[in-house]
Amino acid sequence: MLSVIKIGGNVIDNPQALHQFLADFAALPSPKILVHGGGKIATQIAKRLGIETVMVEGRRITDKAMLEVVTMVYGGLVNKQLVATLQALSCNAIGLTGADGGVIRSQKRAVANIDYGFVGDVEEVNNTLIQHFLTANLVPIFAPLTFDKEGNMLNTNADTQAQEVAVAMSVAMEVNLVYCFEKNGVLLNADDDDSVIPTLTPTQFAQYKADGIINKGMIPKLDNAFKALSTGVKRVTICHASQLREAIEQGNAGTVLML
Amino acid sequence: MLSVIKIGGNVIDNPQALHQFLADFAALPSPKILVHGGGKIATQIAKRLGIETVMVEGRRITDKAMLEVVTMVYGGLVNKQLVATLQALSCNAIGLTGADGGVIRSQKRAVANIDYGFVGDVEEVNNTLIQHFLTANLVPIFAPLTFDKEGNMLNTNADTQAQEVAVAMSVAMEVNLVYCFEKNGVLLNADDDDSVIPTLTPTQFAQYKADGIINKGMIPKLDNAFKALSTGVKRVTICHASQLREAIEQGNAGTVLML
Repeated sequence: MLSVIKIGGNVIDNPQALHQFLADFAALPSPKILVHGGGKIATQIAKRLGIETVMVEGRRITDKAMLEVVTMVYGGLVNKQLVATLQALSCNAIGLTGADGGVIRSQKRAVANIDYGFVGDVEEVNNTLIQHFLTANLVPIFAPLTFDKEGNMLNTNADTQAQEVAVAMSVAMEVNLVYCFEKNGVLLNADDDDSVIPTLTPTQFAQYKADGIINKGMIPKLDNAFKALSTGVKRVTICHASQLREAIEQGNAGTVLML
Repeated sequence: MLSVIKIGGNVIDNPQALHQFLADFAALPSPKILVHGGGKIATQIAKRLGIETVMVEGRRITDKAMLEVVTMVYGGLVNKQLVATLQALSCNAIGLTGADGGVIRSQKRAVANIDYGFVGDVEEVNNTLIQHFLTANLVPIFAPLTFDKEGNMLNTNADTQAQEVAVAMSVAMEVNLVYCFEKNGVLLNADDDDSVIPTLTPTQFAQYKADGIINKGMIPKLDNAFKALSTGVKRVTICHASQLREAIEQGNAGTVLML
């Protein structure tokens, strides 16, 4: 079974938590793939470069200057530091953006009410190439960046990118998708880390949304997660980064999605 | 025959020259590999971030802050923009640092008279993995960065990296190494672009050095180039970036090295 792991930006920002997570990831059996978020460092570096960060509904507006920042920070600084750290942990990591080998091609998002700028919606994942990397005992580490046919890099949501990679790979093999972040799972009460919902169906999700119990950024995350489960991924878990090995080895960490 | 092409920083800094070069590179027959330099953009971004650039004998002192800058700029911004542009030119580029797949491992340079900081001297090139990429019809695009076993990224001279890759690949196939830069070749008179030395032997090189005709940055470049030729590379050319196709297709551009 292939493990596709998404690690969120908040964990990237915490060196101690990140190092423990990477040690756990390195210890997982192959085949495995990591998709990482960006973290606050892009915003910090943009600020130091005098570039203003504009967020709309939790999403970064990516003009030309911000695209250069996220290409540098996600594709260079964060991705290569993860790769070098994993190499030192004897995990044969290879850092990739969607542009590399043309592995994840997107379309620049059309302007509707909001112009998100250089933001990509995934159109095509080359699962044959990813399979080729896995067969060579490589461990793909994806930055949240894709590209289009016009030669643009495109800022891409890491949750969505993980879901798209997991679904594309599920055509050829069983896939276990784990979203790791800084909370213990989907919570009944955002202020109570012990209020984890152990299993979640689409019907329950709809009810929790209607009741306002699940809200904000958790909604698009769960939309991505349920989409993966309904389009071929065998198992989807949302859990704390420190629960990665439990999630993979025992399958009972955090919130497990069910159809 | 495998073409290993090095493109220098001055060409990277000139958008028009760079685009023409990339179009020429995309049009070359495969298999082929590109190794790119850094360009002035790392210095510019370091300056905007308030990080001072210190050069000793033309080499960048790479402390921790500068390592983050070159990892971002070379491994992220420059490398991914090259990859995305080449993808749009139908060249199936894959951006790599030495850390990716552990393909080029270095040792952090020991401190002698000067502490260069996080600078790597290449120890091992995994030519089997590079061959694996070439067999998959991928075109490796190397940033001038390698890594060590301790989890550090290391700033690495692109001329040397190109030579090391070319020599490692020459074990399995004939290799044509071309150093492209902003001059027409090795010049008899640095101020006269038409004074290209068409062929150069080690004896002539020694004489030109003794006479002060070849000096400064051209000396380490030629040291690298002759080392490649004497350790297995079939052909080595130093020429203008605009002469790439002539150099590969006709073999008579710029300065051709001879043993």
